[in-house]
Amino acid sequence: MSADQAQALQDWYPDDFSHCFGCGRLNAHGHQLKTRVEGEETVSLFRPSPEHMAVPGFVYGGLLASLLDCHGMATASAAALREAGHSVGEAPSPRYVTAMLHVDFVRPTPVGHVLEIRGRLEEFTSRKVKVSAWIMADGETTARASIVAVPMPEKMRERSHAERPPVIAPT
Amino acid sequence: MSADQAQALQDWYPDDFSHCFGCGRLNAHGHQLKTRVEGEETVSLFRPSPEHMAVPGFVYGGLLASLLDCHGMATASAAALREAGHSVGEAPSPRYVTAMLHVDFVRPTPVGHVLEIRGRLEEFTSRKVKVSAWIMADGETTARASIVAVPMPEKMRERSHAERPPVIAPT
Repeated sequence: MSADQAQALQDWYPDDFSHCFGCGRLNAHGHQLKTRVEGEETVSLFRPSPEHMAVPGFVYGGLLASLLDCHGMATASAAALREAGHSVGEAPSPRYVTAMLHVDFVRPTPVGHVLEIRGRLEEFTSRKVKVSAWIMADGETTARASIVAVPMPEKMRERSHAERPPVIAPT
Repeated sequence: MSADQAQALQDWYPDDFSHCFGCGRLNAHGHQLKTRVEGEETVSLFRPSPEHMAVPGFVYGGLLASLLDCHGMATASAAALREAGHSVGEAPSPRYVTAMLHVDFVRPTPVGHVLEIRGRLEEFTSRKVKVSAWIMADGETTARASIVAVPMPEKMRERSHAERPPVIAPT
């Protein structure tokens, strides 16, 4: 099965934690990033909007950092699912949050391309997951990231439950 | 003079390089972050929109990374201006781009607060500027960053000139 046919990690996050601006399916204003497993790697595809620029001709670095962040959390979630013996969609995708995000912008990212964000598990423990991720535009790697994900803390989970909006609807 | 009366670095970026989604004054869809010098530090204030969430109750980490990124570039620009003997607004703010962004998310950032982003110069050379920056919400530091800025490469400058849109106007 190719990555574009596979199920996206984010489509199986629990409803209460699916409002992320970067990748929540219940946030109509957000990027709705979708991450799929492809062999030993994860892959997301994203086309930046024209306004997502740093300077004319080049993609905004803050967007790249955001995509790497959400992609990293999904890669951690995929690893946790696999540890539990599940494929994506067989059980809710465990929700991780970012403890550390390190991005090296190795060359400017040109506009006008679908970005390919890829990731790979580097280390898995029950308390912490390390992931590497990178972005390619027009066949060239433009950013490389190292990311540390941790399972969503119980306190965050409780407050999120209490504050949950139904859906962030389009205006 | 207090920081909120001082001139913002971003208001003095050259027009051709003022379209950044995070801090460009000519990008009507963007965050339009404004960074000011306050003694030995820099400060930006930003109120996230309701849709800028990671999970309900907490601010989206990708937004925090984006704010730290733009704030870091402005802090580098302020340092370059000072090196040249200028105050903000006496000359165009030099435009830097991000080579490295490292963010430690030290605790979840609660929604409902104006975020205070602060920065400090760590090292200045003509080729590279190192900056530390951090975000405070409701009096607590929630994220700490280490950032490396470099002057905008000539190639990027040339392509930006060629591709410059007039203004990213509101729809």
